[in-house]
Amino acid sequence: MSAMILETIRSDYLAHLSYILIHKGKAAVIDPRRDCQAYIDLARQHGASISHIFETHRNEDYVTGSRELARRTGAQIMHGKGFPFDFGAPVSEGDWFDIGDLRLTVLETPGHTFDSISLVLRDMSSGEDPVAVFTGDALFIGDVGRTDFYPDRREEVAGLLYDSIFGKLLPLGDHVILYPAHGAGSVCGSGMAQREFSTLGFERRHNPALQLGREAFVRRKAGERHEYPPYFRKMEEINAQGSDAPLCEIREPKPLGAEEFAKLVANGGAQVVDVRSPEAIAGAFVPGSLAIPEQLVSGYAGYLLDYGQPIYLVAETQEEMQSARAQLLRMGYDRVEGWLAGGLTGWETAGRQYDSIPAVNVRELVRRIQADEDFTLLDVRKQEEVEAGMLPGARHIFLGDLPNRLTEIPRDKPVTTFCGSGQRAVIAASILKRHGFERVEDNLGSMAACRSYGCPIVEPATSGKPDEQEAA
Amino acid sequence: MSAMILETIRSDYLAHLSYILIHKGKAAVIDPRRDCQAYIDLARQHGASISHIFETHRNEDYVTGSRELARRTGAQIMHGKGFPFDFGAPVSEGDWFDIGDLRLTVLETPGHTFDSISLVLRDMSSGEDPVAVFTGDALFIGDVGRTDFYPDRREEVAGLLYDSIFGKLLPLGDHVILYPAHGAGSVCGSGMAQREFSTLGFERRHNPALQLGREAFVRRKAGERHEYPPYFRKMEEINAQGSDAPLCEIREPKPLGAEEFAKLVANGGAQVVDVRSPEAIAGAFVPGSLAIPEQLVSGYAGYLLDYGQPIYLVAETQEEMQSARAQLLRMGYDRVEGWLAGGLTGWETAGRQYDSIPAVNVRELVRRIQADEDFTLLDVRKQEEVEAGMLPGARHIFLGDLPNRLTEIPRDKPVTTFCGSGQRAVIAASILKRHGFERVEDNLGSMAACRSYGCPIVEPATSGKPDEQEAA
Amino acid sequence: MSAMILETIRSDYLAHLSYILIHKGKAAVIDPRRDCQAYIDLARQHGASISHIFETHRNEDYVTGSRELARRTGAQIMHGKGFPFDFGAPVSEGDWFDIGDLRLTVLETPGHTFDSISLVLRDMSSGEDPVAVFTGDALFIGDVGRTDFYPDRREEVAGLLYDSIFGKLLPLGDHVILYPAHGAGSVCGSGMAQREFSTLGFERRHNPALQLGREAFVRRKAGERHEYPPYFRKMEEINAQGSDAPLCEIREPKPLGAEEFAKLVANGGAQVVDVRSPEAIAGAFVPGSLAIPEQLVSGYAGYLLDYGQPIYLVAETQEEMQSARAQLLRMGYDRVEGWLAGGLTGWETAGRQYDSIPAVNVRELVRRIQADEDFTLLDVRKQEEVEAGMLPGARHIFLGDLPNRLTEIPRDKPVTTFCGSGQRAVIAASILKRHGFERVEDNLGSMAACRSYGCPIVEPATSGKPDEQEAA
Amino acid sequence: MSAMILETIRSDYLAHLSYILIHKGKAAVIDPRRDCQAYIDLARQHGASISHIFETHRNEDYVTGSRELARRTGAQIMHGKGFPFDFGAPVSEGDWFDIGDLRLTVLETPGHTFDSISLVLRDMSSGEDPVAVFTGDALFIGDVGRTDFYPDRREEVAGLLYDSIFGKLLPLGDHVILYPAHGAGSVCGSGMAQREFSTLGFERRHNPALQLGREAFVRRKAGERHEYPPYFRKMEEINAQGSDAPLCEIREPKPLGAEEFAKLVANGGAQVVDVRSPEAIAGAFVPGSLAIPEQLVSGYAGYLLDYGQPIYLVAETQEEMQSARAQLLRMGYDRVEGWLAGGLTGWETAGRQYDSIPAVNVRELVRRIQADEDFTLLDVRKQEEVEAGMLPGARHIFLGDLPNRLTEIPRDKPVTTFCGSGQRAVIAASILKRHGFERVEDNLGSMAACRSYGCPIVEPATSGKPDEQEAA
Repeated sequence: MSAMILETIRSDYLAHLSYILIHKGKAAVIDPRRDCQAYIDLARQHGASISHIFETHRNEDYVTGSRELARRTGAQIMHGKGFPFDFGAPVSEGDWFDIGDLRLTVLETPGHTFDSISLVLRDMSSGEDPVAVFTGDALFIGDVGRTDFYPDRREEVAGLLYDSIFGKLLPLGDHVILYPAHGAGSVCGSGMAQREFSTLGFERRHNPALQLGREAFVRRKAGERHEYPPYFRKMEEINAQGSDAPLCEIREPKPLGAEEFAKLVANGGAQVVDVRSPEAIAGAFVPGSLAIPEQLVSGYAGYLLDYGQPIYLVAETQEEMQSARAQLLRMGYDRVEGWLAGGLTGWETAGRQYDSIPAVNVRELVRRIQADEDFTLLDVRKQEEVEAGMLPGARHIFLGDLPNRLTEIPRDKPVTTFCGSGQRAVIAASILKRHGFERVEDNLGSMAACRSYGCPIVEPATSGKPDEQEAA
Repeated sequence: MSAMILETIRSDYLAHLSYILIHKGKAAVIDPRRDCQAYIDLARQHGASISHIFETHRNEDYVTGSRELARRTGAQIMHGKGFPFDFGAPVSEGDWFDIGDLRLTVLETPGHTFDSISLVLRDMSSGEDPVAVFTGDALFIGDVGRTDFYPDRREEVAGLLYDSIFGKLLPLGDHVILYPAHGAGSVCGSGMAQREFSTLGFERRHNPALQLGREAFVRRKAGERHEYPPYFRKMEEINAQGSDAPLCEIREPKPLGAEEFAKLVANGGAQVVDVRSPEAIAGAFVPGSLAIPEQLVSGYAGYLLDYGQPIYLVAETQEEMQSARAQLLRMGYDRVEGWLAGGLTGWETAGRQYDSIPAVNVRELVRRIQADEDFTLLDVRKQEEVEAGMLPGARHIFLGDLPNRLTEIPRDKPVTTFCGSGQRAVIAASILKRHGFERVEDNLGSMAACRSYGCPIVEPATSGKPDEQEAA
Repeated sequence: MSAMILETIRSDYLAHLSYILIHKGKAAVIDPRRDCQAYIDLARQHGASISHIFETHRNEDYVTGSRELARRTGAQIMHGKGFPFDFGAPVSEGDWFDIGDLRLTVLETPGHTFDSISLVLRDMSSGEDPVAVFTGDALFIGDVGRTDFYPDRREEVAGLLYDSIFGKLLPLGDHVILYPAHGAGSVCGSGMAQREFSTLGFERRHNPALQLGREAFVRRKAGERHEYPPYFRKMEEINAQGSDAPLCEIREPKPLGAEEFAKLVANGGAQVVDVRSPEAIAGAFVPGSLAIPEQLVSGYAGYLLDYGQPIYLVAETQEEMQSARAQLLRMGYDRVEGWLAGGLTGWETAGRQYDSIPAVNVRELVRRIQADEDFTLLDVRKQEEVEAGMLPGARHIFLGDLPNRLTEIPRDKPVTTFCGSGQRAVIAASILKRHGFERVEDNLGSMAACRSYGCPIVEPATSGKPDEQEAA
Repeated sequence: MSAMILETIRSDYLAHLSYILIHKGKAAVIDPRRDCQAYIDLARQHGASISHIFETHRNEDYVTGSRELARRTGAQIMHGKGFPFDFGAPVSEGDWFDIGDLRLTVLETPGHTFDSISLVLRDMSSGEDPVAVFTGDALFIGDVGRTDFYPDRREEVAGLLYDSIFGKLLPLGDHVILYPAHGAGSVCGSGMAQREFSTLGFERRHNPALQLGREAFVRRKAGERHEYPPYFRKMEEINAQGSDAPLCEIREPKPLGAEEFAKLVANGGAQVVDVRSPEAIAGAFVPGSLAIPEQLVSGYAGYLLDYGQPIYLVAETQEEMQSARAQLLRMGYDRVEGWLAGGLTGWETAGRQYDSIPAVNVRELVRRIQADEDFTLLDVRKQEEVEAGMLPGARHIFLGDLPNRLTEIPRDKPVTTFCGSGQRAVIAASILKRHGFERVEDNLGSMAACRSYGCPIVEPATSGKPDEQEAA
């Protein structure tokens, strides 16, 4: 007798969840990430060999690790039908695969994508009743998958998703444990719970999206607006064609001295990305660099970085650098070619020029608003956040759109950037700095601080037109 | 927003499951094991501090880590009422404790012990509905807790357990995830599934014990016979009084040369335990040593080792030695004072005498049985295993009872030891060897091999009286 | 045959080197650090038991791990004579101890302290010739030990050190490998090489201190000025009395929310220490906190922190927090009781006030100097650094002395802090901020940047009297 | 200022030593092993990039990791001249390479091979004097390199080696630290010390080979006989052509059930290798398998395994399996395709036949010898070991030659295998078993036990002809 293993492997920041199932020397992996050593190590530890890899759907937010893992283990890749994958084998409703006494059975659950499948888990030694289900991006804990990838067929796919959930998943039974492909923080859904454990029964009763009838569900889903970072296109392409490079062919980035680094910044092609904390960036940064604090790399690099140009990192520690690089590799940014040796201290002690982004406290911000000072309060949050309230007079441009909407921001006034906590605001500030805005500050704390401190908060409709508001 | 963490920490071989819950900088641990660094590391990693420790019941199979963990973190220990603990604080039905947005609520679920509690887990950010429950030794996956600790009140406690499960646990709902204190392999239950994930709904329908009415349930539980290893008494005592030594006061065992080791064996007091594989023990072992292969230490040391005398180990690798020692420490055997330097090679190359236990293949065994050869086939399995079938002519003495029943085995005949796979048989063989039996062999493979190969298998009633059988 | 193991265990930032020797199941540790699990793990890995612990001298810069390690292993502690230790056993010239075929022989090498010993290492299987020597703080790579601990006997101890080195160590032979107790970066010497490998022969020829005759050596050593951080007294006391607490009795620090943290800062007793990077501190910090960037904790906490009050940390990551805590524990600061949950973001998003320390680039600094602006340029480097050149008009107060010399700094002028790279300058800036100085800036880059950029640099004599200079 | 790092990376069992040097963001690796993640991790940890890889000579005992490491880092491979490498760049006497302030200068030191180079290490911040030297296989600690690879030019190459050592290495100075490419246990030399630390001065005085004049040195070296495992040819070929496969293209071996495994054994092509301990193999093994205990894989697989056929392993633990596999990969055995699931227990419980090799204690062995019993005592040690004494009547066939000399062993008598400790004897026993010898025993303990116990020991000349001896 040997234990049945079910382990969750998380990709931090991407909020991506993958799973390995092991029993009696066999192992299956569901939705592997690209850096797949973790699955191999777990299989080894339990004396198993990975024979099956499942893709629940054609992913758009990361390079799936299926090909990498298959190259290293010889496992077979399986995915749904309805999408022209250049690799792996399609599976159909009812197909099943045994991992020891564990059985995975395919359920076609389209909606998020047309090829989406769920995998029902049974313990054949305890009978035919399902014990768990891997739902990919169909059903999350606290939310359901996005249905905005086919803009002209929004209602159709929303309906498909409803039918997949209510017609196929929920009927498996309240007692069935739920294992989705994403957790809270993912760009694949906005209402996910902070919890990673749930059941179909709990979701049936408490998942807000599941409290609606079919019509209301379709209406709501069809009306949703989600961000669509430009890198999604690249992911779709890689994940359809299987064109990812083997990780062992991607070279380690190199440390570069301040002199060499300065030349790269001067040179237009290189993308210099500062992944330090917002406070450290505020304190001093390499002029011309783009700030994306480490924990925001997965969320925002896909809006701001180009696949065609090399990337050079500024980090405080090797851990920070490696974390940023790992996130970039998961998004297919393979050209992380170097990093600033000695971090910012290396730059400073070389006697090179640095810039800073003064932090503005919420007290000072409120004072300025109340004193009606002449400055731009640039709110870069998502539309849905803004709808829950803004500061009076703020101008909203979503961070992902900022590079294309810089002309909307007056250059003759100071700018204070603003978001939920001040983290994204520092990205925005660095974009403005790169484009020649001179008086740029960051409100560290931002809306969270405002709510704690008690700022005036207004409806976005009002705040959207600051000029009129001022006139009023 | 921060993720809610729920991690399972396993004590291998003991098949003990403990849990840590982390949210928003707080952490609670349920049924910690004694070597508790793992909880501290997880709390650190998630930036949390352990504030609460729960004991679901007065444990009898291991030294709980509550006091050790409390000493190192300052956390508060909580346990049920109905047992006179010398430490911690009693909690009552309905008491609740918040770990960030996670709420643990006490449910009194006596039966296994009178003080048994379960802890219902709610995610207060998703409403009042329970999402999971920690059931201690009340309800397992595939089985329910033992009710044999109060021999004169068997029916009463079996009834209590039924009421706890059917009156309190199952009503929480089919959708509630189940987190018990033991998995398959534990001495605390024999029918557990190999699976570590289940829900109340799945158990309600598939757990064999839950398919019975109250009367049948009580009858069955009251009639069950479980092993009761003598070390349980010591565990009960330590876990009631909190008299475990801090781990940092227990010294590292020392390597001992063959000469020194030989003196210890000669000296009656020392307990020399060989934790190598059955095959290695079969090949060569230190005369006078007691064999307990590493993976059987948790299961059988408690029958065979004395707390009052030092323990010296024979192992093949440091990992094997440390694993055996860790298991012994979890059982309160703090006096592991040394180990044989260089393993058995150290002993052999010192020119010292060694002994061996020839392995008898199933083919040879069947031949001997069929040829009616004069030997003792000693079956040391548990009663319940024997009831499912024995080899003809076998004499059954449960391994745990063997030291006290040696007089029942004829000394003038060869003995072949037998169990489920040959692993426990080697322990039995070493016990016989230590007591002067000369012709002892081990049937590596044992009943598993018999079933694969196709041996004659008989009812235990018949086989229990080999003499009569022969006469027949 | 088994390999002879000699491993170096480093205490980062403290630049402390300790050693473990292992052969044939025995192990000795020389100058262990307090967090001694590393030695136990190495001994385990090689199947050995630690039997001997050597203290080369009564240490003043860290809590030695001898007692901690002895408590956990039962090993015997040995140290030199000439100092009234309350623990362990004194050894004398010529005493020897065998670790398998490795022999450690005591050489009394006073000078740094009266009880200093060196340990000569022989491989008895290769003959009597020494192969290496552990020199403690007598002889370093590129430098020799301090001789300033007996201020009224400076020449005597300098002479003792000369005699120890020239009379005892160097005569062991050019071929002898050198293993000192500190490497570059230690407060125990200022001229150490960046290299951790050397021999007596290499040092005899290239160590600057060994190129002098006895008289010149004594003169130079007697004339040296070293920093003497106040915590040295505490270390001497602990290391004499063996009064360190067992590590397992020191509790984990707790995460504290912004509200709770704010109360601690307001409360005079608590010591709030910000261990983030200088840039992050520059960007935003908790008003009233003391900045000591992580990598400077070992170097400066001993000047600035009080043993009698609890310490609360502000860090960016758990790794940074744990590193700072480990350094503090090595220095006997056992009362690290909490840390700011969520780091500075936690503080900012709670809507609390934060402060910043604007960074001043070297270009701007030079401009101000040349424009003769009215500000204080506060240079907090060590005396020896200042002697190699200062900026014109700078006022020098060594960082360790700053808290006691604040009255020397005019409060009516802006202050720019300055050091070697800008790291210590941020500590100085935070001290000034805590004491009510309002206009404080930090020159990130400092002297290193000045040298790269090409600032005017003057002799300290001139710069030491800024008032006169201004008058001139 | 940053520390200079010099770390030794060992390949266990192969007794191969490789080195990484790191300073100021640059790193060089000397003689990397094939599994080169360790170097990449160290470089990362110290914020460095590996720019140079040095091969001190064309290796014959392992697949060098140069190409693998270069593929992953882009580093340049450098090697000596005088050998037609198909990759990398040749370097010449006096060429130097800077790694920060560390300088590596090439010294041509032929003898072991014609292309052998040594690398002199200088710390340029401390002057031009060498501080250490990496000597490859020219000079070891306690021995010098083999000179038997050019059988018809033995005296010439022995002379070259003498001149390299006495003319180039020793003149660097007594104080120079020695870093060779192998330690004790390597097949590249037999007299190496157990010590990994030494200096040229220590070796000059104590290395036995360096105590000879040129003529005596050449005579001795030219007369030496070393084993030449057949796999050396394969290594030479791979290391000349750079034809090693990238590690990421080699698939994980798979667990195989007893049934499947049995078929492989039955099938002549597969090589089934049992890497368990000698005692475990003695206790029970898969008939037809070849025993090579884990720690002997590096030493003997190269004599016994074929590169053209797949290899299947029998191990007790995953660690043991992975260790054996790692050793095999280092020797270019890329076809480790599977392993027996569940180890020998898996085989036994499947009811399959197993065999055993009874262990014969030294007491019994002596009794048999003295009783003049009719059996073959097969001594499989190396020639040099045998020359130091044998048991009377023993027949010597070196283990590496055994497969080709089986006809010399009488099949009508029992065979007891014998070596230094009983470990190699079990390999010999398994070879005999595979070839149909029926009565085979292993003397666990062997010569070491004989010496401890006090057996009669005779000159090999006598013992080589047991028949005559008996007649005498």
